[in-house]
Formats: sequence, C-alpha cells, structure tokens
Amino acid sequence: MTPPVRAGVVVTGTEVLSGIIADTNGPWLAGRLRELGVDLAHTMVVGDRPGDVRAALDFLAAQGMALVITSGGLGPTADDLTAEVVAGFSGRLLELDPALEERILAILRRNRARTQPASPAGTGWAQYGEEAMRAGNRKQALVPDGATILEPVGTAPGLVVPSADGGPTVLVLPGPPSELQPMWTAALATPALRGALVGAAPLEQRMLRLYGIPEAEIARSLRELEAGGLELDRLEITTCLRRGEIEIATVFSPAAAEDYDAFAAAIAARHADTLFSPDGRTIDALVAEGLVRAGRTVAVAESCTGGLMAGRLTALAGSSAYVAGGVVVYSDAAKTAFADVPAALIARTGAVSPEVAAALADGARARFGADVGIGITGIAGPGGGTEAKPVGTVCVSVAAGDGRGDRAVQLPGDRAQVRDRTTTVALHALHALLA
Amino acid sequence: MTPPVRAGVVVTGTEVLSGIIADTNGPWLAGRLRELGVDLAHTMVVGDRPGDVRAALDFLAAQGMALVITSGGLGPTADDLTAEVVAGFSGRLLELDPALEERILAILRRNRARTQPASPAGTGWAQYGEEAMRAGNRKQALVPDGATILEPVGTAPGLVVPSADGGPTVLVLPGPPSELQPMWTAALATPALRGALVGAAPLEQRMLRLYGIPEAEIARSLRELEAGGLELDRLEITTCLRRGEIEIATVFSPAAAEDYDAFAAAIAARHADTLFSPDGRTIDALVAEGLVRAGRTVAVAESCTGGLMAGRLTALAGSSAYVAGGVVVYSDAAKTAFADVPAALIARTGAVSPEVAAALADGARARFGADVGIGITGIAGPGGGTEAKPVGTVCVSVAAGDGRGDRAVQLPGDRAQVRDRTTTVALHALHALLA
Repeated sequence: MTPPVRAGVVVTGTEVLSGIIADTNGPWLAGRLRELGVDLAHTMVVGDRPGDVRAALDFLAAQGMALVITSGGLGPTADDLTAEVVAGFSGRLLELDPALEERILAILRRNRARTQPASPAGTGWAQYGEEAMRAGNRKQALVPDGATILEPVGTAPGLVVPSADGGPTVLVLPGPPSELQPMWTAALATPALRGALVGAAPLEQRMLRLYGIPEAEIARSLRELEAGGLELDRLEITTCLRRGEIEIATVFSPAAAEDYDAFAAAIAARHADTLFSPDGRTIDALVAEGLVRAGRTVAVAESCTGGLMAGRLTALAGSSAYVAGGVVVYSDAAKTAFADVPAALIARTGAVSPEVAAALADGARARFGADVGIGITGIAGPGGGTEAKPVGTVCVSVAAGDGRGDRAVQLPGDRAQVRDRTTTVALHALHALLA
Repeated sequence: MTPPVRAGVVVTGTEVLSGIIADTNGPWLAGRLRELGVDLAHTMVVGDRPGDVRAALDFLAAQGMALVITSGGLGPTADDLTAEVVAGFSGRLLELDPALEERILAILRRNRARTQPASPAGTGWAQYGEEAMRAGNRKQALVPDGATILEPVGTAPGLVVPSADGGPTVLVLPGPPSELQPMWTAALATPALRGALVGAAPLEQRMLRLYGIPEAEIARSLRELEAGGLELDRLEITTCLRRGEIEIATVFSPAAAEDYDAFAAAIAARHADTLFSPDGRTIDALVAEGLVRAGRTVAVAESCTGGLMAGRLTALAGSSAYVAGGVVVYSDAAKTAFADVPAALIARTGAVSPEVAAALADGARARFGADVGIGITGIAGPGGGTEAKPVGTVCVSVAAGDGRGDRAVQLPGDRAQVRDRTTTVALHALHALLA
C-alpha cells in the first residue's frame, strides 16, 4: 500500500481563534479531503498575525504534508495577510495582477448596483463610494508568482501556490463558506492541485446512528467483537454522542469493505433495539421520508421549545408537503386558547405533565387538521424547576388517529441543550409512531 | 511591558477533525484565556492518533507556550489516549490511582441509579451491567506522576500536569462542554495552574455591533481614522460579518482604555445610523430589554422561518414575560385559517409579499392579543424562486397599535442561512419599532 497523501488545514482569523465566530470551513474541508482519500492530520486555527500563520505552515511542512489549505485572510482590511505569508512560505514573489484587479473592480461595481434596492438588510453598498472599493481591494489582486488564480466567487480570488523549494502545495481559499465551497470545486479542476493529490486513494465513510444507549456500551461492544475475532484493524472507527444520539463513524479503504459489512452486521445484531439508522440517514430525514411515504401531515403545539420543533421539521426543503403548521404556546392561557388544553387539566397536573403534552398533541392535530400531532411541554431552565420537576423535565406526546406515543424524560444540560435535545426526543417518538 | 503569557489549545478527536461534530471548546477556552490576559496563539484540532497529538504538543512547546490546554480523549474507549500522550510529553509516568478509580465507579453507579426512569432518552445505563463500567473506566483513573487531579464532573477526571523538563504545563480537560467548563473553574483554583499563569495581565474586550453597512466601509473608517491621527496601535481590532451584522471586537490592556474610548466615540460619530449596540449587547438582548421596559408582549406568524423566529425570541430565559405565542403557517390555507390573512390577498399578491407579511403581523397580534405582531413570509429555497421573486426574497412586518415597520429584502445564502438571517431582519425591525 502506498503511503497516504497527508494534508493540513490552516484556518486564519482572530475572530475565529478568539471564539467570536465558529469555524465551519475546517469541518467542511475535512469532509472533502476524506472523499478524495487525503488524510487530514491537523486543522490549525491561528489569528491574523503573520508570524503565527507562518509557524503553522512551517509545522505542517515539517510533518510531511503534501497539501496545505488555508481559509481566510483574503479580505480588503489590513489584517488580511494570507497571500503575503504564503508567498514567503512558498518562496514566491508577490506581484500585482492588473487584469485581475480590473475583474475584481467590475465585480464590486456589479454588487453595488445589484444590492441597491436591498438596503438596509443587504450589504448596503448603495450609499458608499468608489474610493472605498478601490483602496480596499487592490491588495486582493496581489498574486504569488507561479500561482494559479481561482476566479473570485465573492470579491476575493483564491490561489493554488506550488512550492518553489519542494514544500507542500498551498491552496489559498477565502473565509466565507459561500465563497470557499464553490472555489474548492474550481480548484480541483486545476493541474496544480491535481498534481499535489497524485497518489490519493478515495476512502469510504459510513455512519451508524443509535438512540437510547450509553457510549460506554458501544465501547464494550467494540472490545468484545474484536476479542471474538472480528477483524477491525482496517477500519477507523470513532463514536460520539451528539444531540442525544450515538454516532459510529467508520472510514476505510474500499479493500476493507467486507470488514465493514461484517462490523455493521455485528452492531446491528447486538443493538437492534437502539440502532435506528444503519445507513447513516439522520432522524430528521427518516421522519421526513416516513411522513412522505405514508402521505401524512404533522402539526406541533410546543411550549418549552418555543418554535424550535417546528423550525427543525421545516429545515428540510420540501417540508411544506408534510408540515401542516405549528403553534407556540408558552403561557397556560395560550395552551388553552390555541391548543384546546383544558384549563382544569393544567390546574390539576401543572403545565408540565404527560397529560398536558398529550392534550397539546391532540390540540395541534385537531386545530391544523393534521394526521399527526406533536405536543411538547417541559422546564428548559434556568428557572422554573422544582424538587419534583427539576430543570430538564420534559414531556412529549405524538398522536395519530391509529396510535400514540408518550415520552417523559429528564434531559441534561443548559437551557439551549434541553431545548435542542427535546426536539430529538420528539423526532424519535414520531419516528416510532410512523414505523 | 512584560512579554505576554502565551497558550495553545489542542482539541483532540477524530470526530471533530473529520467535521462530524463541531468544536465549541476551542472558542470557549479562547474567551476564558482572553479574560485572564493569556495570549492564545494556536488552536489545533487533531485526530485520535497518539503521534499527531504528540506532534501538536511538541509544536506548541517549540513556539514557547507557557500553557497548553487539551480537550477530549479522556473517555472509556480505546481511542481515548490523551492522558498517556501528555504523560510522555511531560516526562511523567502514568500510574493507576486506586482511590480515584473507586470515586469514578461510585459516580457511574449513581448515574445508573439516577437515570433509570429516564430511559429511553436519558443515557440509558439502566439495562447495562457493572462489567462495562469497570472495564471501560479503569483507564480513566490512570494519572501522570506529579499531576493535580481535577475531580470528575461527568466520569472523567481532568489533570494539571507540570512538565518534568521545563516545558509547558498541560491542562487536560474532558471533551464534553458540560464537563469541561465547570472543570476549568476548578483548575483555576489549583496552585499548579496558577503557577503557569504568573505574569498574565487581564485584558479588556469590547464589542460594537452594526447593522446595514458593508464590512469594507468599516475597513475604510479604520484607515481614515488612523490617518487622521487616532491612536489605534494598542488596540487589537477585528471586524467580522455574522448573521447579517458587523461585529467590531477590540482587545486591549487596561492602560489603553482611553484609546479605546476615543476609537469607540469616533465609530459612533461616523456610523450613528448603523451602530445599534455601542456596548456589545446583542440585538436579541436589546429587543428583550425593550419589550420588558415597555411592558409589551409580542406574537409571531411565520412562514419561511418555520418556527425559528419564535425559537429565537424564546431562547432567552424569562422570555415567557413578553412572548405571547407564535404560529407557523407554511401553507396558504394555514395563513388564512390561523393568521387571518385574506385568501383574496394571497391570490392577488402571492404568498410572499409585503402585504401578506403585514397581514400576518396583524393576524398574530390580534390572535394572541399581543401588543406587537411579527409577520414573516419569504422564499428560503432551494426551490420556489422565480425571476421576480428569487430565492432569498423575504418580507417582514412588525405591527403595534401605535406604529408599524416593513422590510422587503433580498438575502444571500442557502436555505439555512436565509432562514437564520430573516430572524435578524425581523429583530432589527422590532428593535426600531420599540425605539
């Protein structure tokens, strides 16, 4: 087997390093590299300081990377320094490309014209002048000699910079994901990047999803399966707990496909009751498919999740086919007025009870004329908890004409986590009802 | 001025490196380090491979870090290797701590008992045995000699590991944020960590938030203010575009407070029309405060955002005081039935129009008896766009008894981004109405 092609990602930006904005480029690039069979070894986040960016590049070169991808630092402000640092790292001179400068200026003029009617929520170029554009964007036309230019998606061009002295090829991409992602595709078409990827062998990735089982139990299964003679050496298996579910992700070369099939079958046999997705489909997708297949619609009456359940159900394109609607009923009065929960019931059981959840589900179903109703009530915190019903107490109910399901659970975490995990509980209850 | 205390963060986990789960520990730790005046230079994400973790530690030591913080790799599975790698890096032997082992086991037994009634959505220990716990968790009681143990918050202890040979102190923390965050506080109380932080001088951080202005215009202001003689050298200023707003974050030592005040005043003078938060409060917080101050309630009728607007309004604790309720009306029929939008109006203007948004706002206000109504309709995509109303076309309306506001905007991005940014547009419209 040839040694794998290794790569590193350098995410630049003080605002990312300092935690002000979350990086999504590192994870996205990781997925693309995996599809290509490139072994991502390190993702490094560094601030907008030339010395620290250069140190990261030098480290990745010393670790034997064939490819380094940078994101960010290509904007118009003075703290955007990536092209200059990469030129130095790669032994290249930085030169102004006048034709590129004109193309960037044309883009800026077009953007200004196009967003004129969109103020104040658009980017609002309308009221601003030519000067800010020219001064701010000339530096975006500085290119290391020998580099391949990737045409701007926004205003910043990308670069493929081969090393002048045997180091890694550097792919320089802009920070905004909406620019980085299309430019990645363009970069793959360049001979310069293809050259750096010679020898990469595509890898497979598979995902198993389970619900209602502790991670340590999966660890035990892995140990016992291996001790029992199952061949796992060629599988890179990682497990993690996410949004209340267990994910088992496995990466392997196509040659190890039989090993994976045997492993997946063994997990399915041991954990038939909790493995809800043997092919990696999310619970969101499974619920959507179940509703479409059955030709059923769903409606929600939610209290503690405050709209997030409806928001999750409508996150997928095409959800208008099966989401009849939803109502957010925070107060007791709203539960009665908009979801027909009897005031006497709330008085008897309190607003957080299995009975109220069931009444909310029935009310949502009846009000919206939906086939299935979802009712959610709970204590998201930080206030409102009691000895008997502490923060995290959540009651969920799903109701259809031919059956119903109820869940009363105690969820961990802060307000945001309780609200988020509640939607997972409800999706699984709905999935069970549709099965 | 003494040289700053520098630190690096190493986030371990193949599931993070590969992009399966998003890292929140790096950003969170960055904020805590900033508060302490520690200069975070690099955040590195590495997979569960001992060689790569060790290489990251060696790199950070070579860069002169006084402190390295690791997150993750302390779990019960065989791929959790952090304690072992750190012991090698720090020149320490790894030894079983039998008393710690017993404490961990006691926690596991308690968890099992407590979550018994919570199945299937709790962690579900109930049906699993003593053996999985013991075998999986003995390794969590292996401790480098000379290390300070941080008591488990979940099941994994943390560690403060001083170097045996003059290298950086390593703070070893578990991966789950709900465990890492409280343990960070405990770590700060240890002499071992305090020793590594000697010399750190707390820094100030301030945030300005603007809405309705392009980032390049802020860049121009920075250039012109500096050219005009304003002293910016002692301020570390970063600007970024987030959720449709511009954030200007500035970090500085207390000695530069006057420089910051002058800078903030200059920005306020130049951008009075778009600077909505001179003290860093979010638009969410400002809207909440405005509603509470005015003693007003709000209700939502939303189409394309599908519940996310109500979800955002109820994200803050205490929102039950001012959120009267919400309704998700995806279909034309639901808009008429649950928000009183005349069917003839929808037929005349289409479901996405300023008129329908206004009718939704009125309907929400009337139905829920709220002081203010919010109406949202738009085309989130990927389907549904036309020449006249492309994907990203969004109409928002806010209606009160004494006034109203309407926004018709064209938002960039994919379905999730359009939905998210729509909630920002609506919050700003509401904020303007409350002003």
